[in-house]
Amino acid sequence: MKAPVLALAGGVGGAKLAAGLNQVLEEAQSPLNIVVNTGDDFEHLGLHIAPDLDSVMYALSGLNDTERGWGMRDETWQCMSALGRLHAETWFSLGDQDLATHLVRTQMLRDGATLSDVTAHLFAQLGVHASVAPMADQPVRTIVDTDAGTLAFQHYFVREQCAPEVRRFDYAGAAEATPATLLARTLADPTLRAVVICPSNPFISIDPMLAIPGVRDALAATTAPVVAVSPIVGGAAIKGPAAKMLKELGLAVSATGIAEHYGELLDGFVMDAADESLAGALTPLPTLVTQTMMHTSADKRALADQVLAFCDGLT
Amino acid sequence: MKAPVLALAGGVGGAKLAAGLNQVLEEAQSPLNIVVNTGDDFEHLGLHIAPDLDSVMYALSGLNDTERGWGMRDETWQCMSALGRLHAETWFSLGDQDLATHLVRTQMLRDGATLSDVTAHLFAQLGVHASVAPMADQPVRTIVDTDAGTLAFQHYFVREQCAPEVRRFDYAGAAEATPATLLARTLADPTLRAVVICPSNPFISIDPMLAIPGVRDALAATTAPVVAVSPIVGGAAIKGPAAKMLKELGLAVSATGIAEHYGELLDGFVMDAADESLAGALTPLPTLVTQTMMHTSADKRALADQVLAFCDGLT
Repeated sequence: MKAPVLALAGGVGGAKLAAGLNQVLEEAQSPLNIVVNTGDDFEHLGLHIAPDLDSVMYALSGLNDTERGWGMRDETWQCMSALGRLHAETWFSLGDQDLATHLVRTQMLRDGATLSDVTAHLFAQLGVHASVAPMADQPVRTIVDTDAGTLAFQHYFVREQCAPEVRRFDYAGAAEATPATLLARTLADPTLRAVVICPSNPFISIDPMLAIPGVRDALAATTAPVVAVSPIVGGAAIKGPAAKMLKELGLAVSATGIAEHYGELLDGFVMDAADESLAGALTPLPTLVTQTMMHTSADKRALADQVLAFCDGLT
Repeated sequence: MKAPVLALAGGVGGAKLAAGLNQVLEEAQSPLNIVVNTGDDFEHLGLHIAPDLDSVMYALSGLNDTERGWGMRDETWQCMSALGRLHAETWFSLGDQDLATHLVRTQMLRDGATLSDVTAHLFAQLGVHASVAPMADQPVRTIVDTDAGTLAFQHYFVREQCAPEVRRFDYAGAAEATPATLLARTLADPTLRAVVICPSNPFISIDPMLAIPGVRDALAATTAPVVAVSPIVGGAAIKGPAAKMLKELGLAVSATGIAEHYGELLDGFVMDAADESLAGALTPLPTLVTQTMMHTSADKRALADQVLAFCDGLT
């Protein structure tokens, strides 16, 4: 058994690097364990929606829509139209194909399966190489304290389009949660090759994981290198509200701000070539400066290859 | 307040006459209460599916597919494809638009609404004139005892395509159910104008209602005429397995067989012109012989008009 790589991932950006790692490590017949944020999960129309798990699933199985940037390709919205006709809630877009995922997940959970069980089942149906799990089987819900009041994550993110100014994040339930088996077991594995923090939003994709008791300590304790890839390139988020959040929280809106946010957790950092001038500021943190924008499948593979080589060089 | 008409309906055939009655009585600004079979209801993929309520809803709102004969027009099946990709159950066809109905219904039921509440809500969203309710708010489930064993209704009807030979029907839960408020209140209304038993399958659409304690007695007690429209024309069912069931149960496969099955409940009977030669056999039961095939909206209105005039003549 070769040494496993652990990737921590949130939404679409994280899913891209996760997909690259999955390609590279599948070809190398080498294990990849991916742990995914569930702080964005919510119940909607009676369905358990897990947006980040689904972003990773659709990216790794090649079902994702690369043009729209989220959801499934060849998606249709007939159910949404019919919900509108029934004057039901339509602020959260549910594609017709995507609904199948939510239906199967919700039914399995109601029948007593854990979210880890459901996740393993769904990824297996699509023949994905990596082992994928949620960060925890218990609910952890990101709560956004804003100038417009305290909002449940999807209300902030989708309904309010991230317009309110962020003051603070809370991860409700995190203190009572335990790391999912895949996460705990992988972090305790003495053969662990590397931990890759994917280019996901630190506040809403990675911090929810770090809020679960034991995760931060286990990341500090592992002898494997812990490396983060910056989701900020040239002072802007590649996608989503990460830059806006950094600003509103009074942090540097830069790759440096991301590295500083993770602080002592990191053994290495990866930033885009556009930010090369900032690399010196992170000394003595080993920093890989490379092309991090992932437009094509080849981009994802190339970044995955470089990140893995960088990690291996840190050991 | 004009005198209300009560229609008892099951699947697609019953829904056609219900739609005709709805048109005629809406124009006359006269009340129509429709009570619908729920013996076919089942849980599927965690959703509460109510096929007969939906057939009536889609027919009365004009959303039904008249070519395929069931479900909604302009329906798509993307969610089904995605369920297949996930190797989930696909033996029961769920259209993408149709899913919206099941999602709203299931969520409302989980939130504590009764099936009567949900039904009233859904029909109201679509602006339907008639007041529509399920036969009961408690679950009543048609069970089919066959030569291939005892089958839940949808397993018999959809999965097995009605192939097994029927020995007997049971209506599990009927003895513990109570008539829905709309049904009980309408049958007790001294101004009730008529009870129309729509051309639905007697065994799987109407008998489940009659199995609920009090319904048969209330039908016998009302001074309003109770009239059934035959779903058998020329010795064959217009749609569905009614003829096959009559044969397997050893009953006459004819309009006469239907009238005999309902027996003393009826104050009048409506049969198709194709069966005119059988009308004499029902003497002294008043019988209307007319064109009962409903291909067009005009056919539905015409039959509704004639049935109402026939009922009014019986009083």
